[in-house]
Amino acid sequence: MDRHEFFMKKALEEARLAGEKGEIPVGAVVVCNERVIARARNQTELLHDVTAHAEMLAITAAATATGGKFLDNCTLYVTLEPCVMCGGALAWARLGELVYGAPDPQRGYARVTPPVLHPKTKVVAGILTEECAALVDRFFERKR
Amino acid sequence: MDRHEFFMKKALEEARLAGEKGEIPVGAVVVCNERVIARARNQTELLHDVTAHAEMLAITAAATATGGKFLDNCTLYVTLEPCVMCGGALAWARLGELVYGAPDPQRGYARVTPPVLHPKTKVVAGILTEECAALVDRFFERKR
Repeated sequence: MDRHEFFMKKALEEARLAGEKGEIPVGAVVVCNERVIARARNQTELLHDVTAHAEMLAITAAATATGGKFLDNCTLYVTLEPCVMCGGALAWARLGELVYGAPDPQRGYARVTPPVLHPKTKVVAGILTEECAALVDRFFERKR
Repeated sequence: MDRHEFFMKKALEEARLAGEKGEIPVGAVVVCNERVIARARNQTELLHDVTAHAEMLAITAAATATGGKFLDNCTLYVTLEPCVMCGGALAWARLGELVYGAPDPQRGYARVTPPVLHPKTKVVAGILTEECAALVDRFFERKR
């Protein structure tokens, strides 16, 4: 299996766990030297905290794992394009590589100028996009 | 004393405490019904966590205090113009009012388009600007 797909499936597992708890189903994992060093899922409802997006929790957990603040040697996999808040956090973390599944034209970081991410962060979009998007779409269909 | 100055002085107290610990001296308080419900200071070094900006910690603490996710009836006072990450978080929190001290033309949220904040968030800039800016300026002078 493709390396990016392998790790995105781990992020999808997290997203599904979020969905089962009534959270918008978004999941993330941080990979460093081919090893998952952090995994997190959206927990804004559980924690009553708008900042508890999967990416934010993953950054904090990854920093705990590495003992440093910066993630320049890491790849963050996330099922949905990060929002502006999360994009800003990834910039402060000097993330090495961002891989995301589904685009988020309404809320995503990519619609903002000047660019939010750190200029050295490599971006790969469109990994398992349909599977990632379907999770979120089904969640909002059930809500209606 | 002016109401905004009164609460900004509380944020400045937090900023000074951050500076004493070797953190970039930025402080924030959240005010709801004329009462401080949360206070926080930058703790990125202590926590090895790039997301631990004063505003982020203040949002999380304020949500704990109110028991809800949204801060639409609250004012956040912060000594420095929030960055894009924090601006995005304040948007998710649907913050009622943002009051900040010193501008941050390099990293601040205001240089980004489309606007990062929630359209209903009222913004007041320039409260005790010199005092807020001097704290940060002195910090970086000592670092050099």
